[in-house]
Amino acid sequence: MNKIIYKPIGIIHSPFLKPGNMPIQPAAALGIRGQIVIDEEYTEGLSDLEGFSHMYLIYHFHLSVSFKLRVIPFLDNRKRGVFSTRAPKRPNAIGLSVVRLIDINANILDIENVDIIDGTPLLDIKPYVQEMEAVDHYRTGWLSSRTQELKSKNSDNRFK
Amino acid sequence: MNKIIYKPIGIIHSPFLKPGNMPIQPAAALGIRGQIVIDEEYTEGLSDLEGFSHMYLIYHFHLSVSFKLRVIPFLDNRKRGVFSTRAPKRPNAIGLSVVRLIDINANILDIENVDIIDGTPLLDIKPYVQEMEAVDHYRTGWLSSRTQELKSKNSDNRFK
Repeated sequence: MNKIIYKPIGIIHSPFLKPGNMPIQPAAALGIRGQIVIDEEYTEGLSDLEGFSHMYLIYHFHLSVSFKLRVIPFLDNRKRGVFSTRAPKRPNAIGLSVVRLIDINANILDIENVDIIDGTPLLDIKPYVQEMEAVDHYRTGWLSSRTQELKSKNSDNRFK
Repeated sequence: MNKIIYKPIGIIHSPFLKPGNMPIQPAAALGIRGQIVIDEEYTEGLSDLEGFSHMYLIYHFHLSVSFKLRVIPFLDNRKRGVFSTRAPKRPNAIGLSVVRLIDINANILDIENVDIIDGTPLLDIKPYVQEMEAVDHYRTGWLSSRTQELKSKNSDNRFK
């Protein structure tokens, strides 16, 4: 299997029109509102989602046109393997964010804690259920001394 | 943007050779070992990952050849909107699991808590950092009375 082809199910809208100076994670985007417009053909698939307060968005970093195997992440000043980071310049430019679901009206979802650039193509939505992940204690490698910075650090243009 | 094309970065191996009777989530797959063989061209991107105990795997449900907008999930007996479930028959057949990272040797990753079928194409790896998700209290909708069942429930062939 050499090529996997997906088709966006909708578009994510947010206050962030350009990649510089935006929150690098949902933890830094508390209260920031956005909206998802799902293609009407998929509206039926949204039923029962309203009971969940949070959901995973899986989306395409559409501005990322190349990748690097080592990147200097926003939270560091040395190069790290790209798979140990959330940087957008990845072999497959897939993004993952947990956002808060505020409201659903037909094919429109109002969301909060949005760290995603306006116009991003959405690939999938999954309910956030921490019990599924089976993570009790965990270590966060090079990020462990930097998780406090997560909340205040914004992006710059390094991954343009 | 109508089509998004990805290329697998590697293949996930597990004891599960067929979709029936396997754990439906990592929480039901505690201790189950697997291995990921990353294409050698991407090995450099794995550096610094060894410090993390858990990681997200984003993969392609390669046995899922069609989708439904409402499905009866393994944990329920009535139809639910597919985006409120983790069922594989989704418009874009993308899977998401949090697994434990045991060891890395060059391009081979030994992993645990594997709820993934053998031969699954891997699209991306991201470090698991709960602090990034900014989830404090959360509600899990139709799943809320069923999270205890997560640990014991196995799949059947309904999504074949």
